[in-house]
Amino acid sequence: MSIQLVYIGRDKKNIYADAEREFVKRIKRYTKFDVLALSPPKLSTTSPRQLFQSKEEELLIEKLPSNSHFILLDEKGKEFSSQSFAKFLDVKRSQHSKINFIVGGAYGFSDSFRKKHKNVISLSKLTFPHHMARLVFLEQLYRGFTILNNEPYHNQ
Amino acid sequence: MSIQLVYIGRDKKNIYADAEREFVKRIKRYTKFDVLALSPPKLSTTSPRQLFQSKEEELLIEKLPSNSHFILLDEKGKEFSSQSFAKFLDVKRSQHSKINFIVGGAYGFSDSFRKKHKNVISLSKLTFPHHMARLVFLEQLYRGFTILNNEPYHNQ
Repeated sequence: MSIQLVYIGRDKKNIYADAEREFVKRIKRYTKFDVLALSPPKLSTTSPRQLFQSKEEELLIEKLPSNSHFILLDEKGKEFSSQSFAKFLDVKRSQHSKINFIVGGAYGFSDSFRKKHKNVISLSKLTFPHHMARLVFLEQLYRGFTILNNEPYHNQ
Repeated sequence: MSIQLVYIGRDKKNIYADAEREFVKRIKRYTKFDVLALSPPKLSTTSPRQLFQSKEEELLIEKLPSNSHFILLDEKGKEFSSQSFAKFLDVKRSQHSKINFIVGGAYGFSDSFRKKHKNVISLSKLTFPHHMARLVFLEQLYRGFTILNNEPYHNQ
């Protein structure tokens, strides 16, 4: 099985770099894992929200293999406890060999894209900056593997 | 008004340091703000959970001024959206001149402490490491002030 975290965005300055590196290193003990950053479509900042969403969704379809399974991270998704997220991960890895967890762009995903891909996860009722959402997800993915392996959580 | 983020814990290695520093700097544009780290009570790691909780709660009572208002960050608390957290913050700052947001130790707060202090906030259904909980809180506090001031969120 391989897992990929996909996001659309450009990082001018990454204040989360140390923490991200640490969790990616830990996740790789359990699974093949990559982070894929896609450059946002070039659009005027005054373009309508729907245009951002549709261009970003086209980009995801174009860049990701058609046999890969999409799980969207979006505020409008389902909230999990860490235990239930670990169970969800366990089911998914038994069903799919390539899983993409995808953080959308600044405007999130369209209703139709969310409906099509069904698996939509929300990390919190709070709105996070996209970059922090990635960090929170990485930590939960690591935590999920420790739960599935009955291992103590390594806190430092 | 002054706000303090209080936590009980010792940081061996702080992978969140850059991000924390950035949000603390931004929060200070809006309010007097400090972070207070309290050393955990010295107890054997095999001590019962209740003993950790009661010693930590005694420490908080001892170290924080009796006129300061406590708001606990705890998994068992109430979840807010960022908008509703900003409103909550607005009400609190109109009622109290010193507010302490408190992240507990490894075992969280006791039922009686949570009941006594009433204001208990949960950042997510997910379990976060305590250090990440602090970072998520700092970002939301900054976000709350931008919402209350009708300012755009500064993403980088």
